[in-house]
Amino acid sequence: MTKRICIIGAGPSGLAQLRAFQSAKAKGAEIPEIVCYEKQPDWGGLWRYTWRTGVDEHANPCHGSMYRYLWSNGPKEGLEFADYTFEEHFGKPIASYPPRAVLFDYIEGRVKKAGVRDWIKFNTIVRDVRKVDGGFEVTARDGETDSEETSVFNHVIVATGHFSFPNVPHYPGFEQFNGRILHAHDFRDAREFEGKDILILGTSYSAEDIGSQCWKYGARSITVAHRTAPMGYDWPDNWKEVPKLDRVEGKTAHFIDGTSKDVDAIILCTGYKHHFPFLPDSLRLKTANRLAADDLYKGVVFTGDTDMFYLGMQDQWYTFNMFDAQAWWVRDVIMGRIGLPDAAAMEADWKQRQADEDALEDDYACIAYQGAYTQELIDETDYPSFDVEAANQAFYEWKKHKKKGIMEFRNHGYTSPMTGTKAPPHHTPWKDALDDSLEDYLQV
Amino acid sequence: MTKRICIIGAGPSGLAQLRAFQSAKAKGAEIPEIVCYEKQPDWGGLWRYTWRTGVDEHANPCHGSMYRYLWSNGPKEGLEFADYTFEEHFGKPIASYPPRAVLFDYIEGRVKKAGVRDWIKFNTIVRDVRKVDGGFEVTARDGETDSEETSVFNHVIVATGHFSFPNVPHYPGFEQFNGRILHAHDFRDAREFEGKDILILGTSYSAEDIGSQCWKYGARSITVAHRTAPMGYDWPDNWKEVPKLDRVEGKTAHFIDGTSKDVDAIILCTGYKHHFPFLPDSLRLKTANRLAADDLYKGVVFTGDTDMFYLGMQDQWYTFNMFDAQAWWVRDVIMGRIGLPDAAAMEADWKQRQADEDALEDDYACIAYQGAYTQELIDETDYPSFDVEAANQAFYEWKKHKKKGIMEFRNHGYTSPMTGTKAPPHHTPWKDALDDSLEDYLQV
Ligand SMILES: Cc1cc2nc3c(=O)[nH]c(=O)nc-3n(C[C@H](O)[C@H](O)[C@H](O)COP(=O)(O)OP(=O)(O)OC[C@H]3O[C@@H](n4cnc5c(N)ncnc54)[C@H](O)[C@@H]3O)c2cc1C
Ligand SMILES: Cc1cc2nc3c(=O)[nH]c(=O)nc-3n(C[C@H](O)[C@H](O)[C@H](O)COP(=O)(O)OP(=O)(O)OC[C@H]3O[C@@H](n4cnc5c(N)ncnc54)[C@H](O)[C@@H]3O)c2cc1C
Ligand SMILES: NC(=O)c1ccc[n+]([C@@H]2O[C@H](COP(=O)([O-])OP(=O)(O)OC[C@H]3O[C@@H](n4cnc5c(N)ncnc54)[C@H](OP(=O)(O)O)[C@@H]3O)[C@@H](O)[C@H]2O)c1
Ligand SMILES: NC(=O)c1ccc[n+]([C@@H]2O[C@H](COP(=O)([O-])OP(=O)(O)OC[C@H]3O[C@@H](n4cnc5c(N)ncnc54)[C@H](OP(=O)(O)O)[C@@H]3O)[C@@H](O)[C@H]2O)c1
Repeated sequence: MTKRICIIGAGPSGLAQLRAFQSAKAKGAEIPEIVCYEKQPDWGGLWRYTWRTGVDEHANPCHGSMYRYLWSNGPKEGLEFADYTFEEHFGKPIASYPPRAVLFDYIEGRVKKAGVRDWIKFNTIVRDVRKVDGGFEVTARDGETDSEETSVFNHVIVATGHFSFPNVPHYPGFEQFNGRILHAHDFRDAREFEGKDILILGTSYSAEDIGSQCWKYGARSITVAHRTAPMGYDWPDNWKEVPKLDRVEGKTAHFIDGTSKDVDAIILCTGYKHHFPFLPDSLRLKTANRLAADDLYKGVVFTGDTDMFYLGMQDQWYTFNMFDAQAWWVRDVIMGRIGLPDAAAMEADWKQRQADEDALEDDYACIAYQGAYTQELIDETDYPSFDVEAANQAFYEWKKHKKKGIMEFRNHGYTSPMTGTKAPPHHTPWKDALDDSLEDYLQV
Repeated sequence: MTKRICIIGAGPSGLAQLRAFQSAKAKGAEIPEIVCYEKQPDWGGLWRYTWRTGVDEHANPCHGSMYRYLWSNGPKEGLEFADYTFEEHFGKPIASYPPRAVLFDYIEGRVKKAGVRDWIKFNTIVRDVRKVDGGFEVTARDGETDSEETSVFNHVIVATGHFSFPNVPHYPGFEQFNGRILHAHDFRDAREFEGKDILILGTSYSAEDIGSQCWKYGARSITVAHRTAPMGYDWPDNWKEVPKLDRVEGKTAHFIDGTSKDVDAIILCTGYKHHFPFLPDSLRLKTANRLAADDLYKGVVFTGDTDMFYLGMQDQWYTFNMFDAQAWWVRDVIMGRIGLPDAAAMEADWKQRQADEDALEDDYACIAYQGAYTQELIDETDYPSFDVEAANQAFYEWKKHKKKGIMEFRNHGYTSPMTGTKAPPHHTPWKDALDDSLEDYLQV
């Protein structure tokens, strides 16, 4: 009997899984029956922008954390698909930090070409998965027809992402703050904050990028409070890094060094939770956001039940091509091309990966570590091999460019690890490019 | 064997159910084993204010639709508990439109006195209910311990409310609006909109009350667009009612009559959905927001499975004391004091109720209809009988006072149907009373 495979999510990870199976089929292999459930009305995961916040059109938690005017925060040379290059898609070299719409178009281009859309049931949220005789019983609800289906699968692949359920800390006085308090997850349009004094909590990518957007689109001032350490970039004049928030009173934020600042809005860039509301404890991944996740052999096989897989659950320097590496590898386990060792060896594997991660000295080492992980998986499948070291180099240069000028780093171009072409600079410096449309970006 | 009862939700409806059982026990009856699951860290349902929006501390959809400065929109004389009067709780007569904190205190007072808190498992969301041999298997997740329990019950009583999952329509241009778009569900502090131009969609209670809050706390202008008909009150000068929204462009809202208005924020006061993400189709109530809901015999017994009950699923003029009437009646069905007729009779019951509702001429008739329904249930249990006609009268006067002065109606007082006492006027007119604390309200 043909195996039945359930993929949950049609973001970059889930789409990589569809493409992996389709690619095996195109090469003549017999592949399992595949159903992909996607709660949104379209594919692309986080790259599908929505103006909605809170809940979506079907009253499910809104997945989207994307905002308008977002440009890639890392160089596209670090995430390029090995089987579908930017040049193939756009018919020409493009600059290195594409806005959201451009990356969405690129992601979509590959899966349109592969013809996998019919495997996806859109508007359908998986609301329960449980172990039964013969596999996993998956209950999925179609929000359009407002009806439910239950189906049994041999394997479940969870590709639901982990940047959609916000971690929202409380600080004293939040109950009585007289402005808006929002998490980065609900940030949509920087122009809303034009002329405003903004307080940001957190010092990671969301803090840096949302602050930069607000600055670019005319916020009056940006204040960033750190819990651990400041970001330390060379910020514009109306941008200040301050110590940890102590409390708010009315519209005044008080910091632990005794200073204070009146602000109109507080944006919590405080990260996300790995959260799987549809899973029982026995199948549920519980891990911190790190490069080597808990309980995942080779970063993908759930050691609690090895018929179950997770894609993209690591913290991410590498993204799209790492998801590809994982998806091809999972496909090969399911198709019997790759065998799994015993439980003890699988546990030893992720523990060793974590020990290795803990020993990494700096961000450069982290990048190399994740590059090597990607390489390791690729080497064991037929995913097109590529110059991972060239991708590492793009990341290293990116980091240096950020240090040199945090509002200018996106004006640089890097060399594609796939084609060897060096990206042209964008026609307009990022800080002056207010139009984030695909049409504008692709103009030469 | 003792029956096992699961109550989902510890808002006014769920608490009424706990109090109903406790009251039977206090009178010497043997009562079933009761477990109440409540996803929030405290009781009170919507009356528990939270500054959070989007998801809650456990990454579940945020329940709260309450906002700061909210005062009851109907007279307290319409919602008073017959077994626990306002005078008993506060030790003196109080004014007729209490702010949220005062009503929370009142709701809490009764259940503290009853001593039912130990029946409730807080921070615990029911994420699945299904029919199994011997009853209902309920899966509930404790967000604090991040772990799950599964338990079988003879009866499930759904008391999860129906004003927490927003109905969020899309209008052309929302994707590109340069301000904030929010649903009433996420509205928290009117001071955020001080000096702003606000557009409100919808013409019901949320529209009227959120508009009034924004006006009271200094919004620059309020524009309310109606889909069907304007509210037609005598609004302040900076408040305008306009036809249906056609589209937005940048920050400009265009209406179907060709007029337009630049706005900073759009507040969608477009109602809520009956939504039960934890239920399969076979157990799931599907109904419009109306006085006689679909598929509920006597407004509470689910005709699809008569071991299952729903509380408070009607559109509401009457609230707390109607929930009480329902809870006492459901208790008596479960305890075998009230029998159920055959399926045909139960179906005929809700269809007849809907036919009666459809024939109602105006809001006054609707009030009387819901008063009569409440009376009907009370008459069949030992819930203390009260002067329902006096409660109807309070509602009729309220409606007239609104018509006379929409910003002044809360300055009036009405006669308690429980004690016969006439409420004193509040010490400060509503529009000048900027402090909504319990301490301030109770001052004489
Ligand atoms: C604001 C932001 C900006 C980012 N910018 C970059 C960047 O510039 N470059 C970069 O490389 N990476 C970036 N990332 C990282 C991002 O994680 C990846 O690019 C990528 O989107 C992850 O893909 P995914 O498929 O694993 O998850 P997602 O993209 O989150 O997709 C998961 C999919 O699963 C679906 N889903 C979830 N739950 C269910 C369910 N129960 N049933 C059915 N379907 C479900 C969702 O609707 C979604 O479509 C960014 C992340 C964020 C939050
Ligand atoms: C903005 C607003 C203002 C209102 N103002 C008034 C007013 O002035 N006067 C008036 O009489 N009525 C008012 N109402 C009407 C309101 O519906 C009732 O007063 C009352 O709160 C309804 O009680 P309930 O218990 O049925 O629902 P809720 O109060 O909504 O309580 C439901 C409870 O169930 C819990 N829950 C939900 N899902 C789960 C789950 N899966 N697992 C576990 N627990 C769950 C929730 O956390 C919540 O505590 C207002 C409603 C709104 C939205
Ligand atoms: N343009 C873009 O491409 C773009 C933009 C935004 C985000 N992203 C992506 O989105 C993902 C998530 O990034 P993220 O920045 O949202 O999350 P993150 O990297 O997990 O960072 C979380 C931040 O929150 C802080 N924090 C956590 N709890 C806190 C608390 N209680 N009080 C104060 N601070 C607290 C942490 O501070 P400590 O250091 O003190 O722990 C840390 O700075 C990344 O993959 C990123 O690449 C991309
Ligand atoms: N102070 C208070 O006590 C207070 C405050 C707020 C709310 N509440 C309570 O909250 C509950 C819910 O009230 P509510 O006003 O939120 O909801 P509601 O009574 O269901 O009203 C929904 C409104 O949304 C409109 N609408 C729906 N879809 C629309 C669309 N696509 N475009 C434009 N308009 C649309 C409807 O217009 P149509 O008429 O055209 O259908 C209607 O006016 C009530 O019980 C109320 O008492 C109380």
